[in-house]
Amino acid sequence: MPLQYNEYYNEQTGLTVGLKKLLFSKQSEYQLVEVYETDTWGNLMTIDGMVMLSEWDEFVYHEMISHVAMFTHPNPKRVLIIGGGDGGTAREVLKHPTVESVDMVEIDKTVVDASKLHFPGVGDFENPKLNVLYEDGIAFVKNVKDPYDVIIIDGSDPVGPAEGLFEKDFYQFCFDAMNENGVLTAQTESPWVESYYPSMRKVFHAIDDLFLFSKMYLNFIPLYPAGMWSMACASKMADPLSDEVGERIAGGSEIVSALKYYNGDVHRGAFALPNFVADIIKR
Amino acid sequence: MPLQYNEYYNEQTGLTVGLKKLLFSKQSEYQLVEVYETDTWGNLMTIDGMVMLSEWDEFVYHEMISHVAMFTHPNPKRVLIIGGGDGGTAREVLKHPTVESVDMVEIDKTVVDASKLHFPGVGDFENPKLNVLYEDGIAFVKNVKDPYDVIIIDGSDPVGPAEGLFEKDFYQFCFDAMNENGVLTAQTESPWVESYYPSMRKVFHAIDDLFLFSKMYLNFIPLYPAGMWSMACASKMADPLSDEVGERIAGGSEIVSALKYYNGDVHRGAFALPNFVADIIKR
Repeated sequence: MPLQYNEYYNEQTGLTVGLKKLLFSKQSEYQLVEVYETDTWGNLMTIDGMVMLSEWDEFVYHEMISHVAMFTHPNPKRVLIIGGGDGGTAREVLKHPTVESVDMVEIDKTVVDASKLHFPGVGDFENPKLNVLYEDGIAFVKNVKDPYDVIIIDGSDPVGPAEGLFEKDFYQFCFDAMNENGVLTAQTESPWVESYYPSMRKVFHAIDDLFLFSKMYLNFIPLYPAGMWSMACASKMADPLSDEVGERIAGGSEIVSALKYYNGDVHRGAFALPNFVADIIKR
Repeated sequence: MPLQYNEYYNEQTGLTVGLKKLLFSKQSEYQLVEVYETDTWGNLMTIDGMVMLSEWDEFVYHEMISHVAMFTHPNPKRVLIIGGGDGGTAREVLKHPTVESVDMVEIDKTVVDASKLHFPGVGDFENPKLNVLYEDGIAFVKNVKDPYDVIIIDGSDPVGPAEGLFEKDFYQFCFDAMNENGVLTAQTESPWVESYYPSMRKVFHAIDDLFLFSKMYLNFIPLYPAGMWSMACASKMADPLSDEVGERIAGGSEIVSALKYYNGDVHRGAFALPNFVADIIKR
């Protein structure tokens, strides 16, 4: 086992994490899934050598990809998660009492297995409202019969099995699979890494063509390249920055006060894009 | 020369930067100042092995430590910068047409020399409004006769010569060295690194005791530990989140439109603290 895990986003520059122990390593049909015990961040999952989550910082990603959509929708009952195999996104979604069912469509059962074994605080897999399906998310979304209120695209990077989650067609399928109040969020990579710009643009322009409201927002994820991570929010009816949404967040203080990252100010503030980020997605 | 620069914030975890060439290395009276050419971030300055700035990401730090204070003050004419030897903070401050003079008090001339040689886009050292003084900032601030409108504390980490910049007494001296509209900003380290919490708390509680408005704000700095950096803003009269300040930023579009990070939304959004950050400074 190496003493350090390195993920470089350019030549020899990137993140270094001190490792204590290799806990899990399995080459699935789709990808290499590994879990390490680290010196700083608790357990760390990587897929094909790219950081997916650590126990210490996963709350940022999971709270931010979930609650922005969940509070933007006026009454989210049926939720679809594409990817999200570690279970953290479902855990956050399930905190909302309006939710009746969550379908989580993860292509690779190995990710769920690794999470159940080594990230016991992340998943809420025993929750009776959660249905885990091991299927291709794109094929699933094409064939939705009973539309969803919220869809969350919690895939990995735009190489390998998650590549199609950054294509325009996929967002059309998602649009068609949601009811008239539908809200969607998706992870869209780091604005500091130029090689990601085409993916960021493709997703943003796709939702911008399809939805009444389409916005990018940002959050701090220490273990992702350059620490700044973007997400996209698309909504058929409710403006994620409206006063109604602000009031809904205030009314959800029972959920919000127990979170570690998300709150009403953070919801609004995350949509403030630095000039260089706004320039990336400008049409 | 090593092939990579490593700055670990815990055991073996932190940042790795690929290096091409050592451009500058000088042990001054105070510290070891080095400049490397990197593979990703342009030239990089380190002091005693800690990242100070790179050519590619310095705009975030310098815009955010400067313009928040400069737009909060209604009419900033006299500005004091403590530290700031690379010249980037002065460059941003000098973009404001109200400014009549900037005193930059840097303890270590070596930092200025290294910046002039290897960061030609960072400093605006020929500007006739800029007075560079090679003195101890704490001693200087104790003896101010002609008060300032804005004071910016642009020091390095709370070890070595910058240690006193995180002490309560120092903020009292700053308070006394400012006029009735005075606004101060200071860099206050990363909320992801527990060993910094005492310094963050000391600064925030000091300004909270002294000033009418005292708030922390955040920005994304890829080359600083964990990528999330905090700054403190203290103001004797104007609320940095008031509508007047928002209007002032809108009126300053000639300055703002040419920036890469700061804008009116970012100004407001940066003050939105995730729950775990708010908890660090809670009294």
